[in-house]
Amino acid sequence: MKIVVDAMGGDYAPENVIAGVVDAVKEFPVTVTLVGIESRIKEQLARYSYPKEQMEIVHASEVVGMEDQPTEVIRKKKDCSITVGINLLKRPGYDAFISAGNTGACVAAATFYLRMIEGVDRPGIGLVIPQVNGFSFLVDVGANTEPKPEHLYQYAQMASVYAQTVMARPEPSVGLVNIGEEEGKGSVFEKQTYQILQEKMPRFIGNVEPNEMFANKADCIVCTGFVGNVIIKTSEGLMEAAGQVLKREIFKDPFAMFGTLFLKGALRKVKKHVDYSEYGGAPLLGVNGIVMISHGRSSPKAIKNAIRAAMREVEHNIIDKLKAAVIA
Amino acid sequence: MKIVVDAMGGDYAPENVIAGVVDAVKEFPVTVTLVGIESRIKEQLARYSYPKEQMEIVHASEVVGMEDQPTEVIRKKKDCSITVGINLLKRPGYDAFISAGNTGACVAAATFYLRMIEGVDRPGIGLVIPQVNGFSFLVDVGANTEPKPEHLYQYAQMASVYAQTVMARPEPSVGLVNIGEEEGKGSVFEKQTYQILQEKMPRFIGNVEPNEMFANKADCIVCTGFVGNVIIKTSEGLMEAAGQVLKREIFKDPFAMFGTLFLKGALRKVKKHVDYSEYGGAPLLGVNGIVMISHGRSSPKAIKNAIRAAMREVEHNIIDKLKAAVIA
Repeated sequence: MKIVVDAMGGDYAPENVIAGVVDAVKEFPVTVTLVGIESRIKEQLARYSYPKEQMEIVHASEVVGMEDQPTEVIRKKKDCSITVGINLLKRPGYDAFISAGNTGACVAAATFYLRMIEGVDRPGIGLVIPQVNGFSFLVDVGANTEPKPEHLYQYAQMASVYAQTVMARPEPSVGLVNIGEEEGKGSVFEKQTYQILQEKMPRFIGNVEPNEMFANKADCIVCTGFVGNVIIKTSEGLMEAAGQVLKREIFKDPFAMFGTLFLKGALRKVKKHVDYSEYGGAPLLGVNGIVMISHGRSSPKAIKNAIRAAMREVEHNIIDKLKAAVIA
Repeated sequence: MKIVVDAMGGDYAPENVIAGVVDAVKEFPVTVTLVGIESRIKEQLARYSYPKEQMEIVHASEVVGMEDQPTEVIRKKKDCSITVGINLLKRPGYDAFISAGNTGACVAAATFYLRMIEGVDRPGIGLVIPQVNGFSFLVDVGANTEPKPEHLYQYAQMASVYAQTVMARPEPSVGLVNIGEEEGKGSVFEKQTYQILQEKMPRFIGNVEPNEMFANKADCIVCTGFVGNVIIKTSEGLMEAAGQVLKREIFKDPFAMFGTLFLKGALRKVKKHVDYSEYGGAPLLGVNGIVMISHGRSSPKAIKNAIRAAMREVEHNIIDKLKAAVIA
C-alpha cells in the first residue's frame, strides 16, 4: 500500500509532517510518497533512521500558503505539492493522499483532478468526533459552506457507509444539526433538509441540537460546512480557553497545584478522549479517490494517525462502497 | 423600580423562578411583578418569607409550553403569562420583563406588542460570554435565524451601546463570526456583512473564527441567530460531556479522587467563570422595551442575576441610548 503525503502542508511543515511519516513507516506496513521540495524533504529525513524502502520522494517546486485562494492554486500553482500529490492518485499503485495544508485548495484540487463519484454533487469533509461514550461522524465540517438540502442527503448516505465500514456500526443512525428538537425548527434550509432526510434516509432520527452534539444522539450527524466548521472550531476554542482558565486558577492555589499531581492520569485520559488528533485526518467524501485532510496544526502523532486512518479506508475499499451506496 | 417576571416560564417553573425572585427582592431595592396562574404563584410564595411590599402578582390564565408555535401564541393565547407580562411594559411604572420560557414566543410577543425601535428591523438576542480574561457580548444567539447583512450592522450598533453602557467599555471593538480570518472568507452572507461593517462600523476588527470566540478578540461579536445558537449550545454540550468524561475517569482512579479534594476550589472558580447563569439573562435588543430572556433550565440564582441585569439596564436607561445610537 502506498500513501501520498503533502510534505509542505501545515503550520509546522515539513518538520512535523516528516516526523509523523517516519513514525508511520516504522510502525505500519506502508510505503509513503512524500511530495514537496526535494531538498527540504531530504534535509528533514536525514535526521531520522527508518526503513528506506518504505519511503519515496516526488519533487514539487511550489508551495501553497494558507492565504492562497483555491481557484488561484488550480489555475497557477500547477507544480505545488497538493496538485502533484492529488494527481499521483490517478496513476496505478498510489492509494490515498493526505495533507495538513490549505483545506480549500485540497478540496478544489481533489474535485477538479479526481472528479466526483457518480451521484454526489459536492464533496464534504467528515470528522470523527468524540461522544461521552465512543464516537460519532460529523459531515460537513468545512468543504461546502452553502450546500443545497440534497447535498446533505448525499452526505448522510456517505456518512452511513463510512460508519458501517470504517467505524463498524452495522445500522448507523443519522441526525441533522438544528437549533431545535422538533420538526419545523431552524431556517428554511434545515426545514427542507429535514423533509428529504425523513423521506429518503432510513434510520433518520431527526434533529440534533448542538448541546447534544457529544451526547451519543446519532452515529452520523450532517450539517452545512459553515455550521460544522463553527462546531469544531468552537469546541477547540472552548477547550483551550477552559484549559487556560483552569491553569491560571491552579497556579493561584498551592493546594490545587498539589492536587493536580494525583489527577494527571485522569486529565490525560480526558484530553486523549476529546483530542481529535487521536483519530487522524478527516476524510474528504465524494471525490473519486481517498483524500484525507489533517488539521493545520497537526502534531507528528496526528500525521501518523492520519496515515493509519487512510490505510483503513484503503483496506476497506471505501470508494467502491461509497459508489455502490450512493447509486443504489 | 418594577421588574415583571414570567412566573410560568422555564423547565422548573414556577418553583425556580419564584425562589430566585424571593432572593432578588430580599437583596435588591426592586419590586417584582409575578405574572402567571395566581393560585400556583401564591402556593410557592407561601414557602418563603420576604418583604411583601416588594412583590405583586398579576394573574394570567394561560401557560405557554416549549412546543408552542410563536405565531399561535400571539393569535390564540392572549391571556398567557408572556403576553400579559410584555403588555404590562406599555403601562407606566413597569420597567422590564424577564422570562425563562419559550424564547420564540417571547421574541414574537415583544416584537408584536412593543414594536421595534426606529432604525432596527429585527430583534436580536445578546449574550455576555466568558473570555479567558473578562467577557464579550455576542449578538444574535437565536432570535433571527435568517437575517440580512444590514441586520447584523444594526446588531453591531446595539451591541456597542450595550458594551459601552452596561459593560463599561468606552470604545468597544466589533468582530464578525466567520470560518476564516481573512476578508472574502465564508458564504455570501458573511462576505456582504463584512463589507457593510467595514464601511460603516467604527472599530470593526474583521472576522473572529470560532476557535478564538473566547480569546478576547473583540468586545462585541455579531452573527446570525442560527450560528450564535450553535455556538452557545455547542459550548454547553461540550462542557457537559467533558465534565461527564472527567468524572468517569476520576471514579476509576482512587489517586485522582483524592486529588480532586484539593482542586475543588479551582474547579469551582472555572465553573463560575464559564457559567452563563452568573451573568443573568440575555437582553432582547431592538424592541421598544427592556426584555430579558433566561435559559429554560435557569436556577434560582440565574433568575436572581437576570433581575439584577435588568435593573442595570433600567438604571442606564438603555432603550433611550439604543434609540439615539441607531438613529445617529
